[in-house]
Amino acid sequence: MIQTKVLHYFDHNATTPACKEVLESLPEFAQAWGNPSSIHWGGRQPKNILRDARKAVAEMVNASPLEIIFTSGGSEANNTVLKGLLEYYQTAQFLTPEQRKRTHFMSSEVEHPSIMKTMQHLKDLGARVDFIPVNRQGQIDLKFYEEHLSEETALVSVMFANNETGTLFPIKEMAEMAHKKGALFHTDAVQAFGKVPVNLKELNVDFASFSGHKFYSVKGTGVLYAKKGNNVTPLIHGGAQERHRRGGTENTLGIGALGVVAKRAPMIAEKAKALAVLRDHMEARILSEISEVTVTAGETPRLPNTSSLVLKGADGETMLMSLDIKGYAVSTGAACSSGNPEPSPVLLAMGLTRDEAQNSLRVSLGWDSTLEQVDSFVDTLKTVVDRLRSLNDDKGETCHV
Amino acid sequence: MIQTKVLHYFDHNATTPACKEVLESLPEFAQAWGNPSSIHWGGRQPKNILRDARKAVAEMVNASPLEIIFTSGGSEANNTVLKGLLEYYQTAQFLTPEQRKRTHFMSSEVEHPSIMKTMQHLKDLGARVDFIPVNRQGQIDLKFYEEHLSEETALVSVMFANNETGTLFPIKEMAEMAHKKGALFHTDAVQAFGKVPVNLKELNVDFASFSGHKFYSVKGTGVLYAKKGNNVTPLIHGGAQERHRRGGTENTLGIGALGVVAKRAPMIAEKAKALAVLRDHMEARILSEISEVTVTAGETPRLPNTSSLVLKGADGETMLMSLDIKGYAVSTGAACSSGNPEPSPVLLAMGLTRDEAQNSLRVSLGWDSTLEQVDSFVDTLKTVVDRLRSLNDDKGETCHV
Ligand SMILES: Cc1ncc(COP(=O)(O)O)c(C=O)c1O
Ligand SMILES: Cc1ncc(COP(=O)(O)O)c(C=O)c1O
Repeated sequence: MIQTKVLHYFDHNATTPACKEVLESLPEFAQAWGNPSSIHWGGRQPKNILRDARKAVAEMVNASPLEIIFTSGGSEANNTVLKGLLEYYQTAQFLTPEQRKRTHFMSSEVEHPSIMKTMQHLKDLGARVDFIPVNRQGQIDLKFYEEHLSEETALVSVMFANNETGTLFPIKEMAEMAHKKGALFHTDAVQAFGKVPVNLKELNVDFASFSGHKFYSVKGTGVLYAKKGNNVTPLIHGGAQERHRRGGTENTLGIGALGVVAKRAPMIAEKAKALAVLRDHMEARILSEISEVTVTAGETPRLPNTSSLVLKGADGETMLMSLDIKGYAVSTGAACSSGNPEPSPVLLAMGLTRDEAQNSLRVSLGWDSTLEQVDSFVDTLKTVVDRLRSLNDDKGETCHV
Repeated sequence: MIQTKVLHYFDHNATTPACKEVLESLPEFAQAWGNPSSIHWGGRQPKNILRDARKAVAEMVNASPLEIIFTSGGSEANNTVLKGLLEYYQTAQFLTPEQRKRTHFMSSEVEHPSIMKTMQHLKDLGARVDFIPVNRQGQIDLKFYEEHLSEETALVSVMFANNETGTLFPIKEMAEMAHKKGALFHTDAVQAFGKVPVNLKELNVDFASFSGHKFYSVKGTGVLYAKKGNNVTPLIHGGAQERHRRGGTENTLGIGALGVVAKRAPMIAEKAKALAVLRDHMEARILSEISEVTVTAGETPRLPNTSSLVLKGADGETMLMSLDIKGYAVSTGAACSSGNPEPSPVLLAMGLTRDEAQNSLRVSLGWDSTLEQVDSFVDTLKTVVDRLRSLNDDKGETCHV
């Protein structure tokens, strides 16, 4: 592929580039090709890689290595908790009558599809599911939550941070409320991983999901944290890997890479501060230099790197493609790419109108983003929006693919 | 790790080294770090990698690219078919009364744990499961199969080749029998992948599982073949990846690597011939130079690279460790490594005694195995077995870890 233009990546919530440290260690992990379960020489090096990575990841999130289950990604981790728990309450042999009644699941209205679709599936399998509403600022309705939580609730699953707006949820408080009713609490922390420090002991959640590729590692590896004492019915039955909690020969390469980035965790707090400054500068310029722009959920605690904008009269997909031509990678929540010009369900759930959702753009910065990049992006966005708004006066189309 | 002794790897059924072609292409795939779902420039290269790999894998097994679903490995592929089909028949809305009755599953007594344990789990979820017996030669009981197959059978899952003995099963014939009763047929072809040519069109199975790391690619990527028209309820619900059949950001690195090895498929038939010659030479020498040895399932059609030996009076685990010290990596089916000195369930299911199973050793050759390596292995095995047998006259222990 020949790239003549300068490329600027502002889509770190979709995925992140593998960092230098990961790229450099890939050959070493690839050379350790043995099966970690082998008891001969071939198993020793891969076994060490798994052990080191497990320790590094555990330290990063303040957990014990025994509480870390490596998965193929965030989606697998999410599916494992939700489906595993329903099956546990449906099939485990020594449940009390009180436990048997736990067929109620809860999550928010703005979860990732790997939670939303799985919750829908649990419904098909006989569970009762409630989705907690959020307001226009992305804040979760704690009153609804309290009213619907009950002794029948098996699990509550609420994301740590929203992938489209960056909104942070009151996980610690919500976990405590769930525990008071004897329910377990899971947080999909995929978007928090590597962006803000995560302290699982302090949050006191029962389960948490992470994904390597959102934190400068490779795709196809994630983590399910399962607090000591919480049984997880495997989503993948098979060999004794991951202490019988997840069958399948381990992805040594991906897991090793996850260990490498986990060791960079001490930098997160500082990076987060720098990113917030950069993001706030970007938003300030956009708000002052482009007319009729709003920042979605701009007044609630947010991830430091994420900016979700509504630019009146400018179609998100069209902005995305115009920016792409100029080398800027951003995102919309819409599924226009698949030929289905539906606006983002997350933004609609927050109460944005279809037009507002359709005119939305997500900009997500990363560790390597610079002030220069951000400034040139704002300059370009201005031109793009101006052009679209003037074109809009003639045509009525809102989605070009 | 400092390795001073020469290492010989004879455990290719456990895993294979990543080949030169894979190692060389990893940097390219790692550099294509974008999210394949992104519609900006970041998604283009990874999308191409996925498309190329899908095409190469499809060609390798004579399928259409649309029939290839990338998974995190063989275990995930196996779990997807079994659990997905049970759920389909339990929850799908527009089933005929005849379809609703399909709650019966069948597989053999010698499947991999990712099938065995999943079948046990289906039982817990309400399915009826029959395991088809095999005889001492590893041959499946077709009479039992025919008698238990019925209009209630949802799925039959029988492996293409056994991982411990190499035995090949009459998949085409068994699939035909299943279809006559309206049942679907799945084959766990993980051990066949890369060892013998696999032609899915000709076999006419409905589903098949493969795993990259058994064919000189990296760990953590596999394939579920789902014949056109067969719906698969996702094991991992989530995004629209893999045409809505498997959620989660794609493991571009592992999938790209799978495409690289798939392109080497035309070499398989020739390599298989050479391996059979080498394996037969090894077995002939062992049988003539070491007393009281038998080859398990030696008279049935087998994978060309696999040799399962019973060496009377020599404990498998102890042989493994003595050979390991001398640099030779082999395997036993026993789970001695996990502190549980149970002999292989596969060998017991074939009718071997506990002693015979305990005295078993699996030698599995690979594309790079040479006559010299094999000869030096036989020489070493002779010494090891002699020593163990003489020691055995004094002690009664059978398992040292
Ligand atoms: C016959 C068979 N099926 C399935 C598997 C599981 O494959 P994976 O390790 O890729 O999950 C293996 C390998 O261990 C196997 O030998
Ligand atoms: C909030 C959230 N959860 C889960 C996922 C899924 O993670 P993965 O792609 O590793 O399966 C993502 C990423 O797409 C996400 O943003």
